[in-house]
Amino acid sequence: MWFQKEIRLPAVKRGFHLITDLLTAQLPELENYKVGLAHIFIKHTSASLCINEDADPTVRQDFESHFNHMVPENAPYYRHTLEGPDDMPAHLKAALLGSSVTVPISDGEFNMGTWQGVYLCEHRNHASKRTVVVTLQGEGF
Amino acid sequence: MWFQKEIRLPAVKRGFHLITDLLTAQLPELENYKVGLAHIFIKHTSASLCINEDADPTVRQDFESHFNHMVPENAPYYRHTLEGPDDMPAHLKAALLGSSVTVPISDGEFNMGTWQGVYLCEHRNHASKRTVVVTLQGEGF
Amino acid sequence: MWFQKEIRLPAVKRGFHLITDLLTAQLPELENYKVGLAHIFIKHTSASLCINEDADPTVRQDFESHFNHMVPENAPYYRHTLEGPDDMPAHLKAALLGSSVTVPISDGEFNMGTWQGVYLCEHRNHASKRTVVVTLQGEGF
Repeated sequence: MWFQKEIRLPAVKRGFHLITDLLTAQLPELENYKVGLAHIFIKHTSASLCINEDADPTVRQDFESHFNHMVPENAPYYRHTLEGPDDMPAHLKAALLGSSVTVPISDGEFNMGTWQGVYLCEHRNHASKRTVVVTLQGEGF
Repeated sequence: MWFQKEIRLPAVKRGFHLITDLLTAQLPELENYKVGLAHIFIKHTSASLCINEDADPTVRQDFESHFNHMVPENAPYYRHTLEGPDDMPAHLKAALLGSSVTVPISDGEFNMGTWQGVYLCEHRNHASKRTVVVTLQGEGF
Repeated sequence: MWFQKEIRLPAVKRGFHLITDLLTAQLPELENYKVGLAHIFIKHTSASLCINEDADPTVRQDFESHFNHMVPENAPYYRHTLEGPDDMPAHLKAALLGSSVTVPISDGEFNMGTWQGVYLCEHRNHASKRTVVVTLQGEGF
């Protein structure tokens, strides 16, 4: 039982953004799966996906602060600099966080922990809409 | 051929812990799969899963040292500080390492390299038991 | 519809290397899948896989520079040092980047973004060939 769909995410400012509700609203097909997996893949190299705390917005602010510290702009060893100071750090952050997340499906819903949500991690200053490919698979009721 | 099970992992101290044997002991169903994938997902935002060297315990000690260095406690830019100095670093480490691992299944067993094992990465000082959702899928013999 | 194959990658020097074309050349079976997922898993603990920019070689050079900076050799807190100064950093880099990538398949091809490619991340100075397990699954045309 396979289902695949590309979803255009709204353009967001640089930072970490919860998209769990936005995804599930676009995926009414989830309710057909008793047991399965949802694979969510971002088709870009300067934005990424991860799963983390979904309750306190300061967590997401601290993500932005820390990743800026750990992967600084204008590092003297960067050679890929033509697309602006935020570009090479964006590629590195995207690789550290990853291009996809896979979430278990149980009884028609994402089976995540109480405090987990899916983050869209936007690493560019002026990004446009991002596209994700969602692939659902599993067995029905 | 789908199988899904939640497994409660024993509480461990902060650090990196091998759980390969613990997982396979709880998954006798593995032997039914000729070819497949095992998805292991942790339902928490301050602990994570990864795959690395399973032979020398000093590797896991160095993981703890390095992640503490790379994601320090009490960074001046943290705003999410109410739950203790180990909390925000725990969220960041969890995102860097990831919420899930996917392991190929071949001939009824995890098909990992000779030196690979699954790590439970516990990033909190005083954590209780952690829950993982294991989803097996594939074709039988 | 399952297919699994181990692929030996050519030995490469330390750094980040595009392997998308090499993988697809070894996977003519891809064209049988209308919708699916490709899971690519590296059976080693000092090399890793990720997905990032596939056009400009300086991006991959900057990856090597940055990861060397973020995960330095000879850190005073390393205890796992018997296998050379590049060994412990290699384990840490491998965990940060990850042991596997999962790529959507659509209409018989990897469905990645225009600028995305699969990287083999070789973290050792003198590595030999690396092995990946590729697992394809999905539904046919």
